[in-house]
Amino acid sequence: MIEIAVDMMGSDLGPETLSEAVKNYAADHKDVAFRCFGDEKRLHPLLSGMSAVQIVDTQSIIPMEIKPLDFLRKKDSSMYKAIEAVRDKTCTAVVSAGSTGGFISGATILLRNIPGVTRAGLCAAFPTFKKGKAAVILDVGANNVNTAEDLLCFAKMGRLYAREVLGVEEPKVYTLSNGLEEGKGTDEIVKAYSLFKEQDFPGFAGNAEAREVLDGDHDVVVTPGFAGNILLKACEGTASLMNKLIKKAFMKSPITKVGYLFASSGFKDMKESMDYKKYGGAILLGVNGVAVKAHGNSDSYAFYNAIDVARRMAESHIVEKIGGMESHD
Amino acid sequence: MIEIAVDMMGSDLGPETLSEAVKNYAADHKDVAFRCFGDEKRLHPLLSGMSAVQIVDTQSIIPMEIKPLDFLRKKDSSMYKAIEAVRDKTCTAVVSAGSTGGFISGATILLRNIPGVTRAGLCAAFPTFKKGKAAVILDVGANNVNTAEDLLCFAKMGRLYAREVLGVEEPKVYTLSNGLEEGKGTDEIVKAYSLFKEQDFPGFAGNAEAREVLDGDHDVVVTPGFAGNILLKACEGTASLMNKLIKKAFMKSPITKVGYLFASSGFKDMKESMDYKKYGGAILLGVNGVAVKAHGNSDSYAFYNAIDVARRMAESHIVEKIGGMESHD
Repeated sequence: MIEIAVDMMGSDLGPETLSEAVKNYAADHKDVAFRCFGDEKRLHPLLSGMSAVQIVDTQSIIPMEIKPLDFLRKKDSSMYKAIEAVRDKTCTAVVSAGSTGGFISGATILLRNIPGVTRAGLCAAFPTFKKGKAAVILDVGANNVNTAEDLLCFAKMGRLYAREVLGVEEPKVYTLSNGLEEGKGTDEIVKAYSLFKEQDFPGFAGNAEAREVLDGDHDVVVTPGFAGNILLKACEGTASLMNKLIKKAFMKSPITKVGYLFASSGFKDMKESMDYKKYGGAILLGVNGVAVKAHGNSDSYAFYNAIDVARRMAESHIVEKIGGMESHD
Repeated sequence: MIEIAVDMMGSDLGPETLSEAVKNYAADHKDVAFRCFGDEKRLHPLLSGMSAVQIVDTQSIIPMEIKPLDFLRKKDSSMYKAIEAVRDKTCTAVVSAGSTGGFISGATILLRNIPGVTRAGLCAAFPTFKKGKAAVILDVGANNVNTAEDLLCFAKMGRLYAREVLGVEEPKVYTLSNGLEEGKGTDEIVKAYSLFKEQDFPGFAGNAEAREVLDGDHDVVVTPGFAGNILLKACEGTASLMNKLIKKAFMKSPITKVGYLFASSGFKDMKESMDYKKYGGAILLGVNGVAVKAHGNSDSYAFYNAIDVARRMAESHIVEKIGGMESHD
């Protein structure tokens, strides 16, 4: 039986949406239990009567912007309590749709890094051009700068994630850079490239440019957090801009609207291909416990998937495997 | 009379495509002359008999990947000669669709930085959600790392470009970061933010996230080159991926193909909005001369626009204005 701690507060859409996801997930998975942290007065009407769900009353919410030290003072918040449940081993995983900064600070401070991990990294699975194939990219924002050694650690963790959770047998691993050739990029990237070659890192396939990371052939891409965050948000922003333009194109006139009626089945496929909600958010890899951060605006489908990622990570014992990863395999 | 030096070699599509652009441009603009550098045997049949075009025979081509010192040894190449013509003031501007690295090295070494410019920056105008509005982003790859002072210099040059060449009256200027609040980002970004505030930089509007730079409200966005290159290529890559998916959606079945017939006028508008070829490539700002780098795969329409950017830059005397920019205006 896996027990998952859920921070029910701090999401953009409120605990109602998250409750729906928890209820649906509990109905579909009888072997998963939930400990839901939040305002009991709001949660009770939403979740009472479910045997798999325990509500834990908390007094405050972590705001969107919070400094690490301020997080530590919010011991009565739903997010603090949820992470604490993983630290105290009463739960195996924590899922939150609250403040990303708060979650990273909290999970890093309360759970601490797995021995051997130089830095924890926020890991996102991007939808790619190949339906059903994701690109695992880390770090996308837990850090600003990272050393070559951090990148090596990200690669080991990202590779484990791609194998154990996404089921990619022999993941190809890349360093994000501004050119394909060895020697391109910042000093850390150049140094990381040599390190990967030196160690004969399994699946290492050289540099990747941001242009090609979504082509479906890049299983794992490692990058310092600042550049990774730019990559993540540039892809999201461009996709959202183009989705708006597609809508606008179909809404242009009565005739183009008729076009949509005919073309809609193709565009539904496209929507499915680009469905980032399928991957349920970002994962903080490298801390002692499964920590999944759902998008702040997750609907119940996206939050359901975030819970599913947490369960699959717990079942695959990825935290333990990261702890023993020195040998690569 | 403006004379433009054109590197006719090194483009993916060959001198035939570039010649077409030169001929069309010369036909449309009687006040512009061209000095075309390349293999005379190939260029003569393409360009002979045009009074506005002078062919200069050159012996070699700069390869796609070249180290700065190797560039200096290629004195007989079309790119070297074309840049040299600007250095020697026989031409006002140089346009090339050849190696980006070679062009940046060559222009930086041969033209040198304008006094007061700490670093030259490669500047790209991105199409945005607002039709006809571009986002000017620099540096997108002339450098890897940049100091806060470089970013300030980029902002001054980018602002001049937006005003003088794109006609934006009061450009809003942003620093690219991983969060909107002051204090977010790497040390250089944080320092640059303070510097902009301290100097009361005209139009400075704080940090921008990669997600929003294409919304049409971000006139100028400054960033160190490595992060800027990731941004540029991530936007290009995602847009190209989505264009492929749109095509796939319409090609799915005979019915969706009918959909395209009805919707095509809307999608033509969309194509126009996203038309990066309109902006003709990237500009190296900060060197002593107008230096425009067209995409390697520019068709004649894109290369025509690159020439047009060069002419407008020359006419606006932006190089001289960058030289006198201490006062911001």
